[in-house]
Amino acid sequence: MAPIDPVRLTADLIRCPSVTPVEGGALQMLQELLSQAGFTCTRVDRGGISNLFARWGDKGHGRSFGFNGHTDVVPLGDEAAWTMPPFGAEIKDGVMYGRGATDMKSGVAAFAAAAIDFVTDTPPDGAVILTITGDEEGDAIDGTTALLDHMAETGEKMDVCLVGEPTCPTTMGEMIKVGRRGSMSAWFTVTGKQGHSAYPHRANNPLNAMARLMDRLASHQLDQGTDHFDASTLAVVTIDTGNPATNVIPAQSRATVNIRFNDSHSGASLSSWLQSEVDRVTAEFGVSIEMKIKISGESFLTPPGALSDLVAGAVEAETGIKPELSTTGGTSDARFVKHHCPVVEFGLVGKTMHQVDECVPVEQITQLKSIYARILKDYFA
Amino acid sequence: MAPIDPVRLTADLIRCPSVTPVEGGALQMLQELLSQAGFTCTRVDRGGISNLFARWGDKGHGRSFGFNGHTDVVPLGDEAAWTMPPFGAEIKDGVMYGRGATDMKSGVAAFAAAAIDFVTDTPPDGAVILTITGDEEGDAIDGTTALLDHMAETGEKMDVCLVGEPTCPTTMGEMIKVGRRGSMSAWFTVTGKQGHSAYPHRANNPLNAMARLMDRLASHQLDQGTDHFDASTLAVVTIDTGNPATNVIPAQSRATVNIRFNDSHSGASLSSWLQSEVDRVTAEFGVSIEMKIKISGESFLTPPGALSDLVAGAVEAETGIKPELSTTGGTSDARFVKHHCPVVEFGLVGKTMHQVDECVPVEQITQLKSIYARILKDYFA
Repeated sequence: MAPIDPVRLTADLIRCPSVTPVEGGALQMLQELLSQAGFTCTRVDRGGISNLFARWGDKGHGRSFGFNGHTDVVPLGDEAAWTMPPFGAEIKDGVMYGRGATDMKSGVAAFAAAAIDFVTDTPPDGAVILTITGDEEGDAIDGTTALLDHMAETGEKMDVCLVGEPTCPTTMGEMIKVGRRGSMSAWFTVTGKQGHSAYPHRANNPLNAMARLMDRLASHQLDQGTDHFDASTLAVVTIDTGNPATNVIPAQSRATVNIRFNDSHSGASLSSWLQSEVDRVTAEFGVSIEMKIKISGESFLTPPGALSDLVAGAVEAETGIKPELSTTGGTSDARFVKHHCPVVEFGLVGKTMHQVDECVPVEQITQLKSIYARILKDYFA
Repeated sequence: MAPIDPVRLTADLIRCPSVTPVEGGALQMLQELLSQAGFTCTRVDRGGISNLFARWGDKGHGRSFGFNGHTDVVPLGDEAAWTMPPFGAEIKDGVMYGRGATDMKSGVAAFAAAAIDFVTDTPPDGAVILTITGDEEGDAIDGTTALLDHMAETGEKMDVCLVGEPTCPTTMGEMIKVGRRGSMSAWFTVTGKQGHSAYPHRANNPLNAMARLMDRLASHQLDQGTDHFDASTLAVVTIDTGNPATNVIPAQSRATVNIRFNDSHSGASLSSWLQSEVDRVTAEFGVSIEMKIKISGESFLTPPGALSDLVAGAVEAETGIKPELSTTGGTSDARFVKHHCPVVEFGLVGKTMHQVDECVPVEQITQLKSIYARILKDYFA
């Protein structure tokens, strides 16, 4: 089998309009390519979402290295603002344009190409597993989780996993993610007693309690950061009341906060803290406060060690740059994979992800394939 | 001329659907009635609003007593919730129902009836002036102000004035208003810097500043009340942002506060205080805050004396109750009249004003006419 060109594969994938939850032909194309290269492919579709499980090598024989990624992409946003066709994969001045160019059809193309070439040229004494989902940008309920559920049910196992998300802020090779902060949101509804603005003592203004609660939450320092994590943060993202009348004290107001937290907290410990602040304000103001919480992901860390050394070594060998081990950024599917095996993330520069005219320098795609290839070689050496 | 029945006149006025700014036939009806009784009537219409000026007696001859009121009414609100026709003036168990029954077609009917009977039966050596507007419930820009402007231009003068608004909280006769707190509103727009919830340090969340500012304003005690006034109050009436995304820190948030203030403040002094709080938060949070202020009315007081004694004496003689002199409540057109002459307010029980099934016991209307009649008799005695 001739070497796979990751640039061409990226372009082919971009031309599949796979906006979540639409498969768009992307997984089908990969399935055919991987099958031809001797991978055992299984479509793991759940809840209207398509996912692909692919294994080269025998189940349970030797060490197994996993790659994880997604072919679904976010919507185009302001389509009229795109200066290049968003599903065209056109190359201009060495840069390829299209939705998913960085996040993360290039990453999927690079690890698929590296894996195929590797098992073709130097078949390892073990397994290479690719888990590719069509639901990373959406609810992520039936995506990587469905693949991991399938693996648990069928006795499939990755010993380590590399997620190919873009991880470098500005320069190729500068950052590996070894964990992520957790993320949770809380919705508050403060209910007081409606009344006339001229007689506040006959009403109970929910906004007084709301302002106090939000001020306390926003000004509280959750921590100062830990060994591998930045400080946890809380953002009040909205406060809304919708009362147009200056002579009316409203009955109710709503607010939402979002918390990104490190390994000194858990969703449960932060929920308790929020509840204690709610209780305090409830007692002080005599209002009632309803709180709803959604924990999108707990914080996690793959402690620096064998896996991060492996990836960092390959990155430095190919780029000359010694990557930083970081836990910054939003969530990724690594938060699911970490329940299965040690996981780190490395990919190209993510600057234009989710933006209009998302794009990737084609040389980064080739470079990324080389890095992934070296990681496989070193892992099975 | 036969005595005017204030109950029937109230009913006739209620049947005129005069929701601000619609005249609805109410002022036209009063104009015809007053003209027949010898009043010189002038329609003072301005800005799409109808107003009526009526004087019995010669201009500038002797003392002049004024009544002020309005025939416009607030909208029906939830029309389906009315159990009686809102413009029907139907009487059930001695209670008349309809929009304006208490606020304040009954008051206008009572003083018009009292004035007509008085000048007919015992023509005074002076003038009785009625100023009746169709814009008290609306912007009040072209209402009583237009009438007072007209009076200034034409050399008309009231020596004292009684506003016939409902003033009694629960029992007929219990309260005279000798002043009102001032009222002002302030609109705040806090602008920070938009960003991703995961990186609050790269953004500047306007909600942090907003929560602090609103908490400070709401928890500040403006004063403890003065000789004739309750304590001033501040109500935060709304905080709005409109950000649906938990992963986005918004760029901007808006809030409105309403202040009711006594004679230890002025609109200007409170504006300065608000500006100083804005400046403080601006400096603390590095946001920019735009503030717009509207002063609806300054506080005012007609110091207890001849006029309040006159009204209180008549109230006590007719009801057996010694009325309290109060400055509570929202704004009324007395805030305009006070620039022209000493003004107090007395009317019936206002409990159902602005509500569904607004209603008035018919005996209160008759009683109110008797009180107004006694005031005229005593004033010109």
